[in-house]
Amino acid sequence: MFAEIIAVGSEMLTPQKVDTNSLWLTQELNDLGVELAAKSVVGDDRTRVSEAVRAACGRAEIVIVTGGLGPTEDDVTREAVALALGRALRFDEKICAGIEERFRRLGRTMVEINKRQAFVIEGAEILPNDRGTAPGQWIDVDEQGRVVMLLPGPPNELKAMWERECRWRLRARLPQQVIRILHWRVAGMPESDLDQLISPVYTRYTNPVTTILAAAGDIQIHLRARCATADEADALLKEVADQLEPLLGERLYSKDGCGLDECVIRMLRQRGETVCVAESATGGLVAQRLTSVAGSSAAFMGGFLTYTDAAKASLLGVSQAVLSNYGAVSEPVAHSMAIGARERFGTDYALSVTGYAGPEGGTEENPVGTIFVGLAGRESAEVKRFRFIGDRARVRSFAAHAALDMLRRRLLR
Amino acid sequence: MFAEIIAVGSEMLTPQKVDTNSLWLTQELNDLGVELAAKSVVGDDRTRVSEAVRAACGRAEIVIVTGGLGPTEDDVTREAVALALGRALRFDEKICAGIEERFRRLGRTMVEINKRQAFVIEGAEILPNDRGTAPGQWIDVDEQGRVVMLLPGPPNELKAMWERECRWRLRARLPQQVIRILHWRVAGMPESDLDQLISPVYTRYTNPVTTILAAAGDIQIHLRARCATADEADALLKEVADQLEPLLGERLYSKDGCGLDECVIRMLRQRGETVCVAESATGGLVAQRLTSVAGSSAAFMGGFLTYTDAAKASLLGVSQAVLSNYGAVSEPVAHSMAIGARERFGTDYALSVTGYAGPEGGTEENPVGTIFVGLAGRESAEVKRFRFIGDRARVRSFAAHAALDMLRRRLLR
Repeated sequence: MFAEIIAVGSEMLTPQKVDTNSLWLTQELNDLGVELAAKSVVGDDRTRVSEAVRAACGRAEIVIVTGGLGPTEDDVTREAVALALGRALRFDEKICAGIEERFRRLGRTMVEINKRQAFVIEGAEILPNDRGTAPGQWIDVDEQGRVVMLLPGPPNELKAMWERECRWRLRARLPQQVIRILHWRVAGMPESDLDQLISPVYTRYTNPVTTILAAAGDIQIHLRARCATADEADALLKEVADQLEPLLGERLYSKDGCGLDECVIRMLRQRGETVCVAESATGGLVAQRLTSVAGSSAAFMGGFLTYTDAAKASLLGVSQAVLSNYGAVSEPVAHSMAIGARERFGTDYALSVTGYAGPEGGTEENPVGTIFVGLAGRESAEVKRFRFIGDRARVRSFAAHAALDMLRRRLLR
Repeated sequence: MFAEIIAVGSEMLTPQKVDTNSLWLTQELNDLGVELAAKSVVGDDRTRVSEAVRAACGRAEIVIVTGGLGPTEDDVTREAVALALGRALRFDEKICAGIEERFRRLGRTMVEINKRQAFVIEGAEILPNDRGTAPGQWIDVDEQGRVVMLLPGPPNELKAMWERECRWRLRARLPQQVIRILHWRVAGMPESDLDQLISPVYTRYTNPVTTILAAAGDIQIHLRARCATADEADALLKEVADQLEPLLGERLYSKDGCGLDECVIRMLRQRGETVCVAESATGGLVAQRLTSVAGSSAAFMGGFLTYTDAAKASLLGVSQAVLSNYGAVSEPVAHSMAIGARERFGTDYALSVTGYAGPEGGTEENPVGTIFVGLAGRESAEVKRFRFIGDRARVRSFAAHAALDMLRRRLLR
């Protein structure tokens, strides 16, 4: 079962405005087992709105139109939907009396223009609005159960009306159905490699539906099963998950959607262990990510931001000889930074980052984008070299992510 | 001149995701004098995307399709647009070679699936992508100047491509009209207070249009004049700016849209001065913001992340007596942290932050959201107490912003 949402209002087409109603409605629809197939924002133009509604009715069983039910000239939703469905608008005396009554209670007189809100599409059920003047409308379009809803734009009016009038009406028209979702997260591999690895499995299934999302070195895999019962959906998800998990191995770091920072903090806390950082190229980004997690103070002790050679030497004890022989962006310096930070904080682990984030800097051997991540533990320290492509923000973001992932993999052992 | 934006991607139809690309593109279009007539989000379904593109082409002169250009099976934009326009797709050897080369530079081998990204719609111009593998496409659809653009979904790729490839192409097709914009930024006052302060001026003008945007303690004021010539537009902007500037005073920190971090780094570099940090509650966020600016290494020397009392004492020299008498979240500790950091780095200034970011912690006197920011200079040190409302992320973000603003105001003197 598919739905489409059309938000009406020119103010929603500005660079600042987000149609938050559609986000809330999507959650409500998903909870009822309905998928959103598309959503759109259309300006206050009768022809455009009418066309959008007509097209949506041709594709989706449920069409929700929000906004444009006010009393002014630019509130065109009623007329546009009537036009799209080829139905007449009739004036409803009772609604008009209700609006007048509402004005009276507020100590005001209804002006003529408010009568526009008393027009109803032929055959529509009226959905009372206890928080505003504009009533909603529910239209059973055809024998196949197609539905069009007109809901007010103000979020508080829309939510109250949905909860009281729409939810139960919709549920009564839907087949019994459950949607269950797995949110997995994967680190340390590009999206295309991941897809090649797991597509032989997931393409064999149309249910669950698999979606892969990537951002800044982090990949999410969503598996969504839709079944008659929760048990069936869970069994289906397990069947696919059991095949994917061995393929992903260590790279799968989250099975509940939590981020890499939170995952690392959780692991440290479970083990009663602590970490500190020594950051150069990332300038605090690794620490900032770790401390963004509530409760991180139990595992994160602090760190050193050493942007200069002098600070690397004086604060972390990196030797001048190493700095001048290898340069600040090098494997031995990353190594020494991690060991120095760990000793000074007395933590179980220390992460270090040194590199060229760009746009300036870099050498032939280590061009912009080269990052060394060091990890010191109780017994040993290791360093990995990375090479990231992109601007300063992207390199820093990938570097911080790689550092967190390196610690996570160590904690797995 | 009207535009429509179609974002492709099933992940954008979830309750959590907002299509931020369309907001950014709307601003860009408006700046060129183009109005947005409608926008939509469509799932990864070839037929639906194709229908949406066909319908948009029937209504708008400019159609922008974002996303769905990746290498995987569910990336359907290329095929859907070809279908909508009734054009063939052809395989482009040169693009394929470029993608292969990109993989080689990263030390990886291109997998077969990436070849999907090398398909081009008949008659399209290829828009190079220097931040990802998927090239964009620009299609002049007909003699009337109708244009369809295919742009990548990741915001950094989309923005870079728009700025380098699309903006000038589009401008060349638009009627001569000049839009001039002032981007101002203001710190240290809530949005509603600012509006009350300046609305008596700006509401007297319909041209320039004034917009106020607020996020995390930072406020932007956009003044947009649209005239036949640049001189006319500039004169109009100056007339309004000359009235607003005295009202804003020191709070106006940027007249060219640059952020507070960049503004502080610029001021320091101009003065040949340096700064370091000592962060507790913000856990590296102040340093991360400063080092996000290219060239920051000339002014930012490094810092201490002291999440524990022990670290505040051993690394920064905060006395145990002060810590136990006043607690780590206190004015004397912020004071001592700033002085300690400045001495150790030998910088001109040091910023310190200590506080309760939440959700746990806080006392009756200093509840969650209380933040002390210290600023040490060559002659003296000062501390300001703030109280921010909101969740952990919001408190940290406001705290970092307040710290940067405190340094900026000191540098003004």
